[in-house]
Amino acid sequence: MTDTDTKALLPAGLRDLLPPAAAFEASVVDRLVSHFAGFGFERVKPPLIEFEENLLAGTGAATAMQTFRVMDPMSQRMLGLRADITIQVARIATTRLKNAPRPLRLSYAGQILRVRGSQLHPERQFSQCGIELIGVDSPAADAEVVVTVASALAALGITGLSVDLNLPTLVPAVCDALHLTAEQRAEARTALDQKDAAAVAALGGPASDILGALLKACGSADTALDALRALDLPPVAAAERDRLAQVLDRVRADLPDVGLTVDAVENRGFEYHTGVAFSLFAKGAPGELGRGGRYLAGQEAGSTQEPAVGVTLFVDKVLDVAPQPEARPRLFVPAGTPLADRIRLRDEGWTVVAGLEPVEDALAEARRLDCDHAMVEGAPRAVG
Amino acid sequence: MTDTDTKALLPAGLRDLLPPAAAFEASVVDRLVSHFAGFGFERVKPPLIEFEENLLAGTGAATAMQTFRVMDPMSQRMLGLRADITIQVARIATTRLKNAPRPLRLSYAGQILRVRGSQLHPERQFSQCGIELIGVDSPAADAEVVVTVASALAALGITGLSVDLNLPTLVPAVCDALHLTAEQRAEARTALDQKDAAAVAALGGPASDILGALLKACGSADTALDALRALDLPPVAAAERDRLAQVLDRVRADLPDVGLTVDAVENRGFEYHTGVAFSLFAKGAPGELGRGGRYLAGQEAGSTQEPAVGVTLFVDKVLDVAPQPEARPRLFVPAGTPLADRIRLRDEGWTVVAGLEPVEDALAEARRLDCDHAMVEGAPRAVG
Repeated sequence: MTDTDTKALLPAGLRDLLPPAAAFEASVVDRLVSHFAGFGFERVKPPLIEFEENLLAGTGAATAMQTFRVMDPMSQRMLGLRADITIQVARIATTRLKNAPRPLRLSYAGQILRVRGSQLHPERQFSQCGIELIGVDSPAADAEVVVTVASALAALGITGLSVDLNLPTLVPAVCDALHLTAEQRAEARTALDQKDAAAVAALGGPASDILGALLKACGSADTALDALRALDLPPVAAAERDRLAQVLDRVRADLPDVGLTVDAVENRGFEYHTGVAFSLFAKGAPGELGRGGRYLAGQEAGSTQEPAVGVTLFVDKVLDVAPQPEARPRLFVPAGTPLADRIRLRDEGWTVVAGLEPVEDALAEARRLDCDHAMVEGAPRAVG
Repeated sequence: MTDTDTKALLPAGLRDLLPPAAAFEASVVDRLVSHFAGFGFERVKPPLIEFEENLLAGTGAATAMQTFRVMDPMSQRMLGLRADITIQVARIATTRLKNAPRPLRLSYAGQILRVRGSQLHPERQFSQCGIELIGVDSPAADAEVVVTVASALAALGITGLSVDLNLPTLVPAVCDALHLTAEQRAEARTALDQKDAAAVAALGGPASDILGALLKACGSADTALDALRALDLPPVAAAERDRLAQVLDRVRADLPDVGLTVDAVENRGFEYHTGVAFSLFAKGAPGELGRGGRYLAGQEAGSTQEPAVGVTLFVDKVLDVAPQPEARPRLFVPAGTPLADRIRLRDEGWTVVAGLEPVEDALAEARRLDCDHAMVEGAPRAVG
């Protein structure tokens, strides 16, 4: 089979995970979710598909263009194939679990699908995994989510972790205080998104001073925070800055080995966040391993919204940097080896591959079956 | 929220798994797949969605009416949302892994979706998990799959396991040998499907004698096999019977505590099987926990077909009878407890629920958060 044949088996952006990649992915997800469970984040499992209007409500609107839709012959309504799980967890929290005590800590892991990949990221099915802490709006809650997810990644053996903290509400707070017009705000946003200091300076007035200073206040957390503290910010913006400082202090206390950076003007992808937001990075990983932040859970119409903070890990990015566990040694045992013996060998740490028919040369058969050992005269012998 | 509100959140047949059900399901699937891995069945993970024509090829045709379809804007072709994983694993085995040594042992676990539920079984999303042994046609291979899956269920703590073995190729072999017409075969099939001895007798000729005897030869494996052995079957049918006997002997040797029954005329749901087929039952479970059997893997057109035997477990049915693990005790720790201390307590076996703000009464707060212990004066104290 040529590569072209293999590729043509599946639509662009979809793939088969083969051995050992599929087992590695499952074990990493299991270890992440177990870590979360150890700190009280309990797993929920929403369905792959549900009413489109629920998937696309509130913060889900961002996924509208990326959601596969099918007509449901039973309800005669449109269903969406989830392109994100966070919105489903928020739905569960604010409906089925609305009477559960707060803070409500939930975790999830599952597959999502997207209609289109990009040239750079052609994948259309992703494995996602994350946590949500719902019902409390405090720096302690923000910090708990950052600490829980970063410590989960560290527990996988990932090194060189860093967290980039952002404050997408800071610039709007400054613009509000300065009574900028809609046009001025849009100009400021574009200039900041492009990290274009000249364009920020060209805004003129106090906006260019404050926003220019915010733009400069990016980098390692301590330097950035010192720069932010030196600024004479309007009251709401100052409160946001102080909150960021509190989150940083708490994260640093728990995770002294995790790198912390601040970019107070970063906004892309954080449009729905209502407070501190963050991205997770690791040494050697080209992109972020996950992202999260504060938002409002629940649909605007109907149930009351609740403050929430959560994070989603992009499992394939985590797999790129997580150390692979050592493979269990594979032991070939001859046909007819009783189950009890195979179980005993398995419990001793072997992957036990049984022969189906008698063979002349157990070592040769073991080699053919990618085993490193064969049972010969009642004992495992290396294939050599 | 009323029950009606809750139900209306999701389309019929789809549901949210809440704590602790979602974690229980994940742990059962993980234990099953780990058991399979211990005996050399390596995990693969095909995508949720792929070209309709591949999903519905060969044995997949049975799922055509149950498959959600969407148009892929990227390939301009129809995609199907898988209603079965077996067909995908067979595709992987006969294409991407066609050069891997045989027998090829693969496992899988994942979600499937179906367009319609029935009145009795309204579910439309299922968790499936199973194994396939590909490339060998032998009683040893059949027996290995039965033994591997039954021992996996036993390892979950499920008791009163039994396996009902079927031989859907036996009746056709008899009909061939007797040169029955298509009409006579259809009559015989209907009579046998309805276990209608009178209708079988009414077929007349040697067909009513042999098929009537087969119909009677159902029940506990030893009795059924004795009855089958006493029959003067045509050669091909006799070979099928002997093969069933060999499979039974091997399964009984490895699993003396698992009940074994035989129904040699059962055919429903086994239309695609080319040899021994089987269903798994447990005491107290109303329906089967899984089913499997021998088939031909691979599409008829294109790649060469290969002999294969596999089994699929219906995870929700397994959950109904698997003992729930004891819940970890939940410990409330006051706000500000350092991560290192929380990790130590987690490693000691607690689920550690951290306070976010200082509280006056740690025991009362623990109770409010469904914890059974609270950290008081540096030690866990029962909430009482």
